[in-house]
Amino acid sequence: MSSAIPISPLAPEILTGLQRVATLFDAQLASDFPAVNELCRYVERYRGKMLRPTLVLVAGLATTDDGTPLRHEHDIIAATVEMIHMATLVHDDVLDEAAVRRRGETVNFLRGNETAVMLGDYLISNAFHLCSRAGDPALNLRLGEVTNTLCEGELVQLSRRHDLSLDTETYFEIVRRKTAVLVGAACELGARLSGASTADVAAWRRFGEQLGVAFQIQDDLLDLLGDEATVGKSIGRDLEKGKLTLPMILHIRGTSGAARTAALDAIDAKDGAALRAALTSSGAIDRARLQAVELVEAAKRELPTTRRTGARELLIELADRVVARDH
Amino acid sequence: MSSAIPISPLAPEILTGLQRVATLFDAQLASDFPAVNELCRYVERYRGKMLRPTLVLVAGLATTDDGTPLRHEHDIIAATVEMIHMATLVHDDVLDEAAVRRRGETVNFLRGNETAVMLGDYLISNAFHLCSRAGDPALNLRLGEVTNTLCEGELVQLSRRHDLSLDTETYFEIVRRKTAVLVGAACELGARLSGASTADVAAWRRFGEQLGVAFQIQDDLLDLLGDEATVGKSIGRDLEKGKLTLPMILHIRGTSGAARTAALDAIDAKDGAALRAALTSSGAIDRARLQAVELVEAAKRELPTTRRTGARELLIELADRVVARDH
Repeated sequence: MSSAIPISPLAPEILTGLQRVATLFDAQLASDFPAVNELCRYVERYRGKMLRPTLVLVAGLATTDDGTPLRHEHDIIAATVEMIHMATLVHDDVLDEAAVRRRGETVNFLRGNETAVMLGDYLISNAFHLCSRAGDPALNLRLGEVTNTLCEGELVQLSRRHDLSLDTETYFEIVRRKTAVLVGAACELGARLSGASTADVAAWRRFGEQLGVAFQIQDDLLDLLGDEATVGKSIGRDLEKGKLTLPMILHIRGTSGAARTAALDAIDAKDGAALRAALTSSGAIDRARLQAVELVEAAKRELPTTRRTGARELLIELADRVVARDH
Repeated sequence: MSSAIPISPLAPEILTGLQRVATLFDAQLASDFPAVNELCRYVERYRGKMLRPTLVLVAGLATTDDGTPLRHEHDIIAATVEMIHMATLVHDDVLDEAAVRRRGETVNFLRGNETAVMLGDYLISNAFHLCSRAGDPALNLRLGEVTNTLCEGELVQLSRRHDLSLDTETYFEIVRRKTAVLVGAACELGARLSGASTADVAAWRRFGEQLGVAFQIQDDLLDLLGDEATVGKSIGRDLEKGKLTLPMILHIRGTSGAARTAALDAIDAKDGAALRAALTSSGAIDRARLQAVELVEAAKRELPTTRRTGARELLIELADRVVARDH
């Protein structure tokens, strides 16, 4: 966990905060039933980069002066967004029939789809319960909007599986909803809980959303190009499940003749090697990578003035890592 | 829908209320995406007896004087509990691999498990969002507790599938959590929103919870004895999926020798006819039915004094119907 936080004057405060968030997360899920607790231990193992809670804490610190502590509500929202994220991972693995996640076997692989569906529901329910413990109806309302949007993104993506006519505009709308809105809310709510102005809160949301889209493009690239040992989860699932990702769309819409046919045939045959070869030679992979980098640059330009020493540098490094990561 | 409400001086007010609730329910789920709206039309078709929203409205009316209107918050909570219930139906049908619900094909049958999982998530998310619109953090907190408990009940039930050692105590604990707590919350919150005393609110919750357990036993009996055309949903799923229900548990624990072996063999072979024969001749079916009736009587005794003309009679008739229904 600690290796995910860049070296920074803020690092000790963030790391202590993430420990509190992890404790709150685990305590929220604790059940009277050993069978439930056993399942929750799989979820603890899924805990990875903790990008979303980190962004809540960093946005919360960045918008206050040196020495001002975070509020308990920051911890609650940080744990809540991570729990929502975990619920989507558990259900996504059911949807993707994935066997590996964070270098371990998935809940659906180990315990069956039925248990994975219900464990995801338990996480969603606990996320809303935890959020309610902050006692601020505006937080519930905002996170309810976010998860509605997230589910819509997933439903639209499902409805467009195997649809070769998917354009980049629809792709970006799906990704904004299914991935970016939660990352945006993490930044927005972190800043809002520190009393940032309405204009600044909106800028934090835009920063997070653009970062979230870049994050998803990088995920698309890793699913296409990465190897399972490094990425630490099942790869090639997008091709397997008929999900058209940005490099595929850029290729299909930017080529004609034999180059286009080669990619369509590879998608049809679910031939990852042939698809990689086609998308590499057309430059579609490079173009997708460039779009992710440009989104990170655009995100950085959204950042409002920060008050805490070292906050801006830390945020810029976190943003750069989104597209530099290999897992 | 209207046929589910007994003839009563309160019937017109309840029916008008349920129309408002249905409108609120549908408006909450409306999406910018036609693909999402199309899926939500399946959910509208699932709408059945509307027992839970009816209980919110009746409890809300019963605890105020004649002529006092319901609050908008009653409608919000009524629609919220129905949406939570619908989400559990959609995910239960995935868990049970059921093909038929409310005389129509299920979402998982028509559109696949993946879409059904995500549609259920969309319903859960919208339920919490809708509840948040009431602006009262105590409502969010209570419903979050209720859905946590509900998911725990489902997870414990899953962990005990095919477990012939399941006892009635654990059975009742599972049923209380997975079914009764939501029915209890419907009554409790209806009364609470009308300003009932703490003692009365607790009595309303106990009334609803006992009714909920009786409801589940009746569901168990219908799954075992009913025919699909009358019940209107896939039956025999409990046996198929290894769920031990009350009549099975009463038989296994109340017989020995050939009678016990006959039932165990029928469970093992998933032979519904043989199981019905064994459970009928041992009296286990009659004993389960009697327990449901006794729970309804116990529920009625919990009812606090009502203030609205006709409310008590309506509640008693609703309670009696829980165990008299054939669908």
